[in-house]
Amino acid sequence: MTDTLKNTAPELFSADSLFARLRAATGPDWPAYTGHEFVRRLGDGTLPEQCFRHYLVQDYLFLIHFARAYALAAYKSDTLEDLRAAARTVSALIDTEMGLHVQYCNRWGISEADMAATPEAAATTAYTSYVLERGMAGDVLDLYVALAPCVVGYAEIGGALKADPATRLEDNPYANWIEMYAGADYQDVARRAVAQMDSLFQRRGGPGRMTSLAETFGRATRLETGFWDMGLKRES
Amino acid sequence: MTDTLKNTAPELFSADSLFARLRAATGPDWPAYTGHEFVRRLGDGTLPEQCFRHYLVQDYLFLIHFARAYALAAYKSDTLEDLRAAARTVSALIDTEMGLHVQYCNRWGISEADMAATPEAAATTAYTSYVLERGMAGDVLDLYVALAPCVVGYAEIGGALKADPATRLEDNPYANWIEMYAGADYQDVARRAVAQMDSLFQRRGGPGRMTSLAETFGRATRLETGFWDMGLKRES
Amino acid sequence: MTDTLKNTAPELFSADSLFARLRAATGPDWPAYTGHEFVRRLGDGTLPEQCFRHYLVQDYLFLIHFARAYALAAYKSDTLEDLRAAARTVSALIDTEMGLHVQYCNRWGISEADMAATPEAAATTAYTSYVLERGMAGDVLDLYVALAPCVVGYAEIGGALKADPATRLEDNPYANWIEMYAGADYQDVARRAVAQMDSLFQRRGGPGRMTSLAETFGRATRLETGFWDMGLKRES
Amino acid sequence: MTDTLKNTAPELFSADSLFARLRAATGPDWPAYTGHEFVRRLGDGTLPEQCFRHYLVQDYLFLIHFARAYALAAYKSDTLEDLRAAARTVSALIDTEMGLHVQYCNRWGISEADMAATPEAAATTAYTSYVLERGMAGDVLDLYVALAPCVVGYAEIGGALKADPATRLEDNPYANWIEMYAGADYQDVARRAVAQMDSLFQRRGGPGRMTSLAETFGRATRLETGFWDMGLKRES
Repeated sequence: MTDTLKNTAPELFSADSLFARLRAATGPDWPAYTGHEFVRRLGDGTLPEQCFRHYLVQDYLFLIHFARAYALAAYKSDTLEDLRAAARTVSALIDTEMGLHVQYCNRWGISEADMAATPEAAATTAYTSYVLERGMAGDVLDLYVALAPCVVGYAEIGGALKADPATRLEDNPYANWIEMYAGADYQDVARRAVAQMDSLFQRRGGPGRMTSLAETFGRATRLETGFWDMGLKRES
Repeated sequence: MTDTLKNTAPELFSADSLFARLRAATGPDWPAYTGHEFVRRLGDGTLPEQCFRHYLVQDYLFLIHFARAYALAAYKSDTLEDLRAAARTVSALIDTEMGLHVQYCNRWGISEADMAATPEAAATTAYTSYVLERGMAGDVLDLYVALAPCVVGYAEIGGALKADPATRLEDNPYANWIEMYAGADYQDVARRAVAQMDSLFQRRGGPGRMTSLAETFGRATRLETGFWDMGLKRES
Repeated sequence: MTDTLKNTAPELFSADSLFARLRAATGPDWPAYTGHEFVRRLGDGTLPEQCFRHYLVQDYLFLIHFARAYALAAYKSDTLEDLRAAARTVSALIDTEMGLHVQYCNRWGISEADMAATPEAAATTAYTSYVLERGMAGDVLDLYVALAPCVVGYAEIGGALKADPATRLEDNPYANWIEMYAGADYQDVARRAVAQMDSLFQRRGGPGRMTSLAETFGRATRLETGFWDMGLKRES
Repeated sequence: MTDTLKNTAPELFSADSLFARLRAATGPDWPAYTGHEFVRRLGDGTLPEQCFRHYLVQDYLFLIHFARAYALAAYKSDTLEDLRAAARTVSALIDTEMGLHVQYCNRWGISEADMAATPEAAATTAYTSYVLERGMAGDVLDLYVALAPCVVGYAEIGGALKADPATRLEDNPYANWIEMYAGADYQDVARRAVAQMDSLFQRRGGPGRMTSLAETFGRATRLETGFWDMGLKRES
């Protein structure tokens, strides 16, 4: 999948973007996340259904904290434009994405009440708490950097799976998951996130921040890998 | 105006609501705010236009922090329902209220660019910083209590002005301001805020919190009075 | 060990304390934490040294966030007395506890530089981020409740191990670890934490908060269990 | 006093320090604060005692929030060294400075109980809430920049008064106030604050942050001027 990633990456982010530099700084952690067994088996359709269902429920619980993270970004915004962008993401998550996620889960026979009643897995708590805490202790740039492995990473994963010859879209129960993240709408969401990080780095960053931002990005990436592990092993 | 307030108050909040108890605990600070000279002169139309324009510009700057406060409430929400309610208020403020405010100011010959370029008056910084800081140091109940003198107070002021025989709505340049806050839409906003506070007090409060909540409510009320003073004296 | 716990518990906290009620509400999660294999093998001296060393290094990294958590509590304090208590805990942690921990680790051949250079394990990040994020999103009571399974739990574990006939203190390399947490100084630290929670519950709580506080306490307890797992399995 | 300031300034901070650049960016706001009538009349001993007593009581209430601000800085610290420095300032404030302040006030016949029972003036709430909220919404650099007009400004004021020929130290009831802030101990506190800001700017800043930092510094400076106004006019 690595070659495919090289081919798709330029479309999603330029090599001199903050995202590209943080991604490069993770070393092997980034491909360990984006090329995780869970991802590969989504691609070829061999992921056990129980693993995917376990993941879907935790992803629902994750989305709630994800909306909270953008609400925190809205609070932390320095400009009305940034506040608006973050607030619109909260609305999109709360009013649209969560609804789509619930519909999607319903098709897998999982009700919203079931999901709401499921306890968060340790990997879910770890990732979401880390992002929120990092964003609170730091500033809005730290927060967006902690969110980036998820927001931009899923677009990269979707695009790479779509382009990967090993991926099977016919008779693959996860085909629509791949199509969603490979689709133009989600790719645009990720591109806007890349641009927002560059804008914030211009306004709030400098060369001296790279070490700390790379540490945040790297840890968030490893916690995302832990999220795939949790799905694959159906960990609570 | 006091008698009028007594007549309208029961419609807006019941006597055993948290809001009513906090309002009662302010002693003379509440009528000093709701019956401020600025308010009375809005009612009889004698407020100098320059004072109102000064207020309008600061109210625009205030609205930005107000949206940030609801974003903070969204982040701090314990339940998906609370998160949704707070996030929808942020959207309403950002996408609707600010637009209406800008339109309204345009009719007074004030452009959004002018407002955005005006420095915050000390009274604006004081009130908004206090609310946000209180909400950050405390929990979402502290935050909503700090916001209540504004959210519910404006509904009470609008309703009381509308019902006050001393109010003149014809040939009063401020008539539409009064109509807006006395109107059913805004009265509903305030009623929901009263209900939300009661719900949060059930879930997060107890008799021991009243002293601290009353102190927050009282200070926020006095900072609102400072906001009227700022308008009346055109303070920077 | 359960019977022993019953015997020692009354000394550490009364049955009607908030701590006791939250502890009871965890069901099997509390004994799973306090009677964890890692704990039992500390007691009988059979814990592999490599597991203990792995734990010690992560405990050093944990202590830094622990100090940050009390700093957050100091910021969030409503009274000068609470601020002073929290600030003194920060000082004690930073100026005394961390030094003792470093000396102790030196005796195991682990230098402070080694510990500072070790990446946080996922279980460390999960627990510390959860506590800090919960404390930020909620109030100082939520924060202290999230800290309690650690602060009070270690005193209970130390006391229970000391009293347990299965515990061996001679020729046990972990004997001084047990003595420290069973010792009068640490037992007093825990008793003050129990009292502080009761005081805060009086001032900021009420019956309606128990569900949410119990959820926080339960999750923090399970994350502490994860911390023992991490030590035992030497997880990164 | 301007010339004197030019003479003393180089000792306190270098021209290329972040503090010097932010100070320069305030334009007339900085001399309006450091050369305020309240300051000048401290220097020549003509400040009415009632104004000074009013200021002293509010300064006590201010100190509590000041300690909270350093606790927040401790929480927000990225490194153990920064955490230690902030935590030691909290301790110094809580355990030493507040005690000295109380002793000093006792000599003016003001008891700690009196001060604790006095409501915060609007100017006190405005300044302290602004600093804390700015530090929460931003990062630890934003927080230290918001604190700098106070921490470093008082050292500059003390040094300038001491060097000013218009200052009278004999038979001046405020001589010991001047001596304290002009003294080597406090000058060192300020120098460390200047160095800490430079260090944080290296690690977390860049040219793009200057506009935002200057806005924070400028607003905090004006709120400090408001604090002198409050003292001089004995405003509540």
